[in-house]
Amino acid sequence: MREALVAAAFQLFPERGYEQTTVDDIVALAGVGRRSFFRYFPSKEDVVFPDHERCLADMTAFLAAGDDADEPVRRVCDAARLVLGLYAENPAFSVQRYRLTKKVPGLRAYELSVVWRYERALAGYLRGRFAGRPDGSLHADVIAAAVVAAHNNALRSWLRADGQGDAHAAVDHALACVQAAFGSGRPGPAGAADEDVVVVVSRRSAPLWRVVREIETTLGRD
Amino acid sequence: MREALVAAAFQLFPERGYEQTTVDDIVALAGVGRRSFFRYFPSKEDVVFPDHERCLADMTAFLAAGDDADEPVRRVCDAARLVLGLYAENPAFSVQRYRLTKKVPGLRAYELSVVWRYERALAGYLRGRFAGRPDGSLHADVIAAAVVAAHNNALRSWLRADGQGDAHAAVDHALACVQAAFGSGRPGPAGAADEDVVVVVSRRSAPLWRVVREIETTLGRD
Repeated sequence: MREALVAAAFQLFPERGYEQTTVDDIVALAGVGRRSFFRYFPSKEDVVFPDHERCLADMTAFLAAGDDADEPVRRVCDAARLVLGLYAENPAFSVQRYRLTKKVPGLRAYELSVVWRYERALAGYLRGRFAGRPDGSLHADVIAAAVVAAHNNALRSWLRADGQGDAHAAVDHALACVQAAFGSGRPGPAGAADEDVVVVVSRRSAPLWRVVREIETTLGRD
Repeated sequence: MREALVAAAFQLFPERGYEQTTVDDIVALAGVGRRSFFRYFPSKEDVVFPDHERCLADMTAFLAAGDDADEPVRRVCDAARLVLGLYAENPAFSVQRYRLTKKVPGLRAYELSVVWRYERALAGYLRGRFAGRPDGSLHADVIAAAVVAAHNNALRSWLRADGQGDAHAAVDHALACVQAAFGSGRPGPAGAADEDVVVVVSRRSAPLWRVVREIETTLGRD
């Protein structure tokens, strides 16, 4: 029934416009009662983003299931990939919603609040991992914002291209950029490798990101 | 008259609650007509954030006034400081608004949309500066998000501490963290210094941010 309500809503929105479509219109087309709608969706906005509550819960559970051996930045990048999965599993629906959201300011505001909640989930995890570090909460907030921005940059490019191309590869590439800037490299036990020394020689005037890339390459991190 | 309306609104919100205060209540206390209110503020939300439109315009103008000699990351950090200036010039008002915004979901959503517009202004500038670079738009979006997150981390700490302490120093410190990760270092002409070489020796297992900090220190960048 939940799927039927979403399908009815997304049949009506393009035909009548989002604002002009009422909950009554949606339930009439789905052939169910008004109360059934509100059992699944608190408001009309929620039918546009039907899976974000579940995805937020999945993300929170995924982060909570980690342990101290996880490299923190890699972990939040993997958590962000859960959101991509939600979009990539149904490209046609995701593209349709993207177009709708761009046109309706109220949905844009709703989407910003959803993105904010994902970002806070990532930041909350990182704050826990960085607890006791100098500037722990600052680094947590900055990295969470960078992960969300990178993920959304790749996701939106894919949506603008009508869901053509490999969304996973695009997001992997974008998140690798954040891991390069902030990640602490290879996970796993530190042992003999601790004594392994890397020498980087760089022109003083080189942009820092280029120096970092050079280090990355030397270390063989991806 | 504009200031009188803001003052009246912020006298009434704590007394009656934000939702219970009407525009009529505000204009009655300010001693002006209803139409005067809407001449200055499109909605009740806008009276809570009376200076953001001006600040957004200032930020856009500031970014547009730059030239190619500006180091792009430093420029967006300086642009973000305009927002801090808005809060720091009136700590009591900023703290009062912070408390109100935390309590009223509608204002929280409004604030997210304001933050989003600042972030897009910064990202738009960086996209222009990075045009033609590989991953230019990705780097632009990630850096803009990181700048906003760093700025807001410091700003919110200051607001939570009731506006006590040096907000400017806190924001400078937070933004320096972003410049360290993404900035291309010293602005100014590249000349003889191009030939100047820096050698960094690091354990392979060192976290990347520590390597970057080491490079920063070596280069004498702040």
